[in-house]
Parts: sequence; structure tokens; C-alpha cells
Amino acid sequence: MASTKSQFMVNAFDVSTTDSLDPAIQAIVRRRARILGPGYKLFYKTPLELVRGEGVYMYDTQGNRYLDAYNNVPSVGHCHPHVVKAISEQAAKLNTHTRYAAEPILDYSERLLATFPAELDNVMFTCTGSEAVDLALRISRFHTQGTGVIVTANAYHGLTTAAAEISPQLGANVPIGQHVWTVEAPKPDRNDGKDPGTEFAAGVAAAIADMQRHGIKFAGFIADTLFSTDGILPDPAGFLQPTVDVVHAAGGLYIADEVQPGFARTGDTMWGFQRHGIVPDIAVMGKPMGNGMPIAGVVVKSTILAGFGNKVRYFNTFGGNSVSIAAAAAVLDVIEGEGLLENSQKIGRYLKDELVRLTAGAENVSAVRGAGLYLAVDFVDQAGLPDAAAASDTINGLRQRGVLIGGTGMYGNTLKIRPLLPFTHSHADEFLNAFEDTLASVASTGHKNAGH
Amino acid sequence: MASTKSQFMVNAFDVSTTDSLDPAIQAIVRRRARILGPGYKLFYKTPLELVRGEGVYMYDTQGNRYLDAYNNVPSVGHCHPHVVKAISEQAAKLNTHTRYAAEPILDYSERLLATFPAELDNVMFTCTGSEAVDLALRISRFHTQGTGVIVTANAYHGLTTAAAEISPQLGANVPIGQHVWTVEAPKPDRNDGKDPGTEFAAGVAAAIADMQRHGIKFAGFIADTLFSTDGILPDPAGFLQPTVDVVHAAGGLYIADEVQPGFARTGDTMWGFQRHGIVPDIAVMGKPMGNGMPIAGVVVKSTILAGFGNKVRYFNTFGGNSVSIAAAAAVLDVIEGEGLLENSQKIGRYLKDELVRLTAGAENVSAVRGAGLYLAVDFVDQAGLPDAAAASDTINGLRQRGVLIGGTGMYGNTLKIRPLLPFTHSHADEFLNAFEDTLASVASTGHKNAGH
Repeated sequence: MASTKSQFMVNAFDVSTTDSLDPAIQAIVRRRARILGPGYKLFYKTPLELVRGEGVYMYDTQGNRYLDAYNNVPSVGHCHPHVVKAISEQAAKLNTHTRYAAEPILDYSERLLATFPAELDNVMFTCTGSEAVDLALRISRFHTQGTGVIVTANAYHGLTTAAAEISPQLGANVPIGQHVWTVEAPKPDRNDGKDPGTEFAAGVAAAIADMQRHGIKFAGFIADTLFSTDGILPDPAGFLQPTVDVVHAAGGLYIADEVQPGFARTGDTMWGFQRHGIVPDIAVMGKPMGNGMPIAGVVVKSTILAGFGNKVRYFNTFGGNSVSIAAAAAVLDVIEGEGLLENSQKIGRYLKDELVRLTAGAENVSAVRGAGLYLAVDFVDQAGLPDAAAASDTINGLRQRGVLIGGTGMYGNTLKIRPLLPFTHSHADEFLNAFEDTLASVASTGHKNAGH
Repeated sequence: MASTKSQFMVNAFDVSTTDSLDPAIQAIVRRRARILGPGYKLFYKTPLELVRGEGVYMYDTQGNRYLDAYNNVPSVGHCHPHVVKAISEQAAKLNTHTRYAAEPILDYSERLLATFPAELDNVMFTCTGSEAVDLALRISRFHTQGTGVIVTANAYHGLTTAAAEISPQLGANVPIGQHVWTVEAPKPDRNDGKDPGTEFAAGVAAAIADMQRHGIKFAGFIADTLFSTDGILPDPAGFLQPTVDVVHAAGGLYIADEVQPGFARTGDTMWGFQRHGIVPDIAVMGKPMGNGMPIAGVVVKSTILAGFGNKVRYFNTFGGNSVSIAAAAAVLDVIEGEGLLENSQKIGRYLKDELVRLTAGAENVSAVRGAGLYLAVDFVDQAGLPDAAAASDTINGLRQRGVLIGGTGMYGNTLKIRPLLPFTHSHADEFLNAFEDTLASVASTGHKNAGH
């Protein structure tokens, strides 16, 4: 199925193979279908039943250990004792909302805002990245009085009605919003001599012009600074500045979706947009913010929030509640205390260098990319076209070897490697050994799998 | 300001009075404005800084105790030890998402679904009631291929873009969606001899016809079964059946918003719709589900979910995660183990009877309503028009006496009394004594306050 746009979730368990599973997992798969309905998907050709997590490992019901090079929610480590203690203590003391006065939310907010450029001086809390994206859209549309939004061709920004409308990655059954324009993702590895930043900005400018020609007022541009679902496109750092300029010149807002790159993931900087040296108008964050506690946020220039904040009633019942804030503060403690930004850069560089080395002779690997602990490996077939089957075999081969990763990209042919932030050199070597072994196996069975 | 539609939040602190506050609270108010921006509102004329909760009480920084007759999130009691233990133990063991197989989410889901009519046989998890409403809208629109939605005139259903479009309570600065029609709230106390259920259904039928005349296909009707923001309208139980029939006859779905009435709040039944003897197509729930953990859900007929579930990619990262499920299961344990449904009915009836007795001679009280531990008291001025100032004085008078309640209704003149579910007779008497004292004080200063 090389070069076909992936219509379905990468690395999903195929329910038509349920009969081939062990009885225990089979029973769970059938119960899930009966109780949760068909929307709930499992990972891997052989799904995992996990019951315990500690540090960078998870364990299944049989006690088998899995090295977690995938999950970006428990980013500072599964069940990190400092975060667990903060949650447990606060849950036993008080868990309430923001309509009573409290110091901890302000102390945390000041710490969080201190990691941003000074212009980004307000923060609002939600429970999920989707809610944060949705709120950012509401603020942007209120501020600009425009409705038009521009996203990349395979972007994913969330699950609310409004967030799904700006998420073409969801496929043909979720229509892109009528006021939403898409642009081709950046092509950092373009070989036509053109500058990727200039070219990408030109695409955004053309989309703005076309939108305006259709009578739709431009509100803003939103992108995951790592372009995770477009294939993970971090380099060259700085290529986003021309796009910021184009967006601002047209009166729109630049929204940085930091749900994936935020909180030290990219190694170089706390936030993905900082790698590019740009200053967005709004930044949204989520997943790793509370290491599993549902907390997310919108950081925004007060000049932009003022209108919405003064005129629109918005109250998020659980947003910024006492326990969520305690968890989020503990996560910042750990990132700072354990030097996880530096670690992300150091171990990420090591992993990338080694992945380049290990795949240098592999004809079915066309590229290795990454920033910090967010890495990509592209698979191609003998014609040089995207090979999702080879990526899938690698993902599942690693799972059989006790290492967890995922897949991504427009064609599903890109490995998504996101080790937990406290990965050591030793963990990296454990990953690399399993990867080398898997790669050899996939290469030797390549013809068979290519026909899947 | 009698009879003016309330444009702003009922019971909000007025920031223009910040200078009059104690220095500690004043500092927090100013920090909040600087850091969180103008969207964050506090309760009461003198905001509270709360630091501890236990059972039905909360405590401020000075150790003052407040009886909680307002908060419907920590519904089984602040920091209930069984729920805190479940959260703490699970947080230390594993907190992960639904793409790995797990038994506890299925065990919990079966318990939850057992409280619903058999036709409602699937459940999906989100993090907030807003996300649940948004998902219910997505499912409804996908299933019916319609877009039109009908809500009551002062409904509130959430904060996402799509949920806010069906929330006229948010006021003029949040436009009602172009495919959204509003109907007058039920008038249970109508004195024109007409049946409130028949009249309400006639309003819905007229809205459907008008929507269709505008070329918009009807998707569904959604209502909070208690009509909380329309003034709390629980009786006569059963009045919603004609509306269900009208909605179904027009090919639409009936969505029960159970965020407010659900989880035993109404005393008679676990879910508000059951008081009316109706069977909705979809029910959404949230706030009390995890006693403060951000978990919410959509319970839906599998026949209606099938299309969306099979064809639309939907994944809620934190939705149904290990810790949220542990908290939610513990909440069900407590509701069942402590007989909180029965308690809600028993103490709710006692409170309503006593409120009727205490307000019998009060000229400024026009009605007492309620179901279980969700009670309403309406205030009117000498002309019989809604008196928001009297309601506000009562709310703030109770707060000064160490009792927490809120306000609601189209005109902000209705007390919203929602004691925590474990209220005993003794707690009820503590509330009633403070209420009687406050009512006498408000009556004696009525003229002054009416002019505010």
C-alpha cells in the first residue's frame, strides 16, 4: 500500500484478527467492543495488557518489561514518586476550582510563564490539549473577528468539533471546516534549491489570499512546532520565522501548538517554538503537563486575551483545580531538578547519531530526523515510495522485543520514537540494540511485507 | 435591576471593589488579574481563600469552617478517604490511556451501564462535561446527518466552541449557533390551566418546524434534565415524555445532559431523566463522576454510536485513564456503600419541606422547588418581579454565616442550593438555621438592596 494516504490510525490492532489472540486479551478485546463500542482502538498487532509502570518501563500481566520510547504523557517517568506524592497529598487536603482564591495556582503560573517570552504573560487552564486548542481558537476568532484558520495538510489538533475541523489527519469522514484552509507541510529535505522556510511561508500567504478571495476573514495559523503528524519535521531550526511574518502582516494570529513539543521534549528549548526563535501570539500545551493528570493550558499575550477575557464568560470546572496544579508544579520540579531539558538534548543527540549510523546501509530507510527525544525514521519501498508496512513491522518487531514506539506521517511510513525524558545512555543502548535487531529482521522479510 | 436578564455571572465578585478587601485576598485578586487575566472570576462579595476540605466542610486560611451546600463536584464529600486512597494507589501503580488493554475500565463501565436502561449500552470517556457534550453533538450530527440543535432559552452546556454555541446562558457576547434554535424553558408553575409537558413539547415542535423551514436538518434536542440554569425546574416528574416523542417523530435524538442531575443528585433516581420515566438516546455526565478527578462520559445506544464509532477517529488521551477510572469506581462504591441516593432523597425532602415552612411568610420569596439535594428559592420584589439583589444578599449573607450556596436563573434571582450528598439531618439544620437568620436580615434591609 506504498504511497497511499493512511486513512486509518497508524499501529492500530486489527479487530478482524481477534481470534488469533491469547484468550485473556481476546476476552478484553470482545468486552471493549461490546461496552466501549467500535471507536476504541488498541495498539499493536498483539495488544498489550499493562498493569504497572515505573520510571521508563511498563510491565504486563505476566511481568514482562517494556521500555517506553513512545508515551509523551508520563514524560518525567511513570509514577514518578515526586509527582505521585504531590497528587496524593493534595487530593487528601483539598481539590477545588478557581472561583475560590488560592496561591498555588498563581505560584505555578508564574513559574510556567517565566519559561515563555515576556510578551506571553497570561495563562488559562483547561483539562486537555483539545480544550486548550478550542479555547485558543475562540480567543483568536474573538480578537480578530475573523473565522479563517490555516493548518498543514496532515495536521492533528484535537477532538472537539472545532479542533477536529482543523485536523485533516482524521481523514475523509471528518470534514475539514469550511473556513479552514490547508497548506502543504514544510519540506525540510527539499532538493530543488529553495529555502524551506520561504517556500512554506509562500504557501501560507497563498492560502490567506485564497481565503480572503472567498470572503472569509483570516483569524490565524496554527501548527504543531514539530509537525508531528506531518512526519516530524524539526529542521532547519528557524524556518518558521517567515511564516510568522506573513501571518502577522495579514492581521492573523500565530498559534503554536506545543502539546507535542512542549515541556523540554525537543531538547534544545523548553518549548518547540523557541527552537525556531519565534514569538507566537498564543501557545497551547497539554499531554505531559501533569504527567498523567488531565491538565492543559493556553498561554497568551494579555493584549490579545483582554477582549475575550472581559467579555466572554468562560469557566472550566476542573481546569486548574487544586490537584491538577499540584501535579503540574511537581512536573516542573522534576524537569528542573533532574535536568531533563539537558538530558533530552544529550540523549536525543546520541539516539539520532546512532540511528543514522545503524540505518546507513539500510535501503528501506530514507531518512532519520529528530529534535531532542522526538525522533523519526522513514521507510520506503524499492521504488523509493513510502512503505507503511515496513514501518509497521518495525513497530511490532520492537514491541515483541520489549520496546514501545509508534508510527506517524501522511503515509504512515514514519517511526515515531519518543522516549521518556529520563532516558539514560543505558536505556538508549537498550533501545538501539532492539532496533538494530528488528531492522535486520524487517530487511530480510521486506519483500513479503511490502505486499501486505 | 429586577427582571433584567442577567448578563453576567451570578454571585461574581466585583473587581471594582478590590480596594475594600483584606490585604491578603486583595493581593491574590491583583495577582490573578495580572497572571490569569480578566476571564477568571471569584465567588462572593468577599472572596474566600480555602485551603482544606473534609466531608461536607471546607476551611479557609484562618481556620474558619464553611458548610458546603454548593459544590457538586466533590459530591460524595471533600477528600473522601476511599476516593483519595483509590487515586493515590493507582497513581503510584500505573496511569495510562485506553490504547493498551485493561480490565478496570471495563469493570467500571459495566457497573455504570447497569444504572442505565438496557438500550443505553455503550460508554465513551472524556475529561470534562464540555467534552462529553461536544462528543454527543458529534455523534448526533454524524448519525442523523443533521446539524440543527434545540436548547432552552437560558441553557448552559459547556465551553468548547460547539458547546458554547448551544449555551445561550453565556449572554450576548457568545452568539448562539446559526443552526441552533432556542425554546422557552418549561413552566412547571403555569397557572393558565395548560399541561406544562404538552406546552413545552409544542414549543419544541414549533422550533423543529421553523428550523426545517430554514432548510436545516434537525439533529437533536438537548436539555439538562433539571434545567439548572433556567431556574431549576424538576416538577412535575414526567413532563418530558411528550418532548421525547416530538423529537423522535422528527427523526432527531434526545440528549439528556446529566452533568448537573446525575449520580444521585435528584434523590429519586440515579439519573435525572429517570425521574421523568423517559429513555434518552444519549446521556452525558461529568462533574461528580470522579469527585474532582477530571472524568466525564457519554452513554449512548450502540445503534446510534455504531456509525461514528466505526468511521470517525476519536481518541481522548486522558479520557478513561487508569487514575480517572479508579476515582470513578471509588465514587460508585461510596454512593452505593453509604446509601447516598436514599440520603439525597431523604435529606432533600426534609430541606425542601423546611424551606417551604421558613419562607411561608416571606413576601420576597415566590417559590421553593427542588429534587433531592438540588433546591431552588426564587426572590421577587414588591411588584412581584425577579429580584436578583435579594438573592445575592442571601447568598452573601449565608457566606458570612459560614454556609456556601450559589445563584442561578434567567434573571439571577434564584438560589442554587446543592448540599454535598452525605449531608445529615444535623447538617441540614445547620444550613436551615443560617438560612432563617439570613432571610430575616435580607427582609429587613429589602428596600435598600432592591435598589442596587
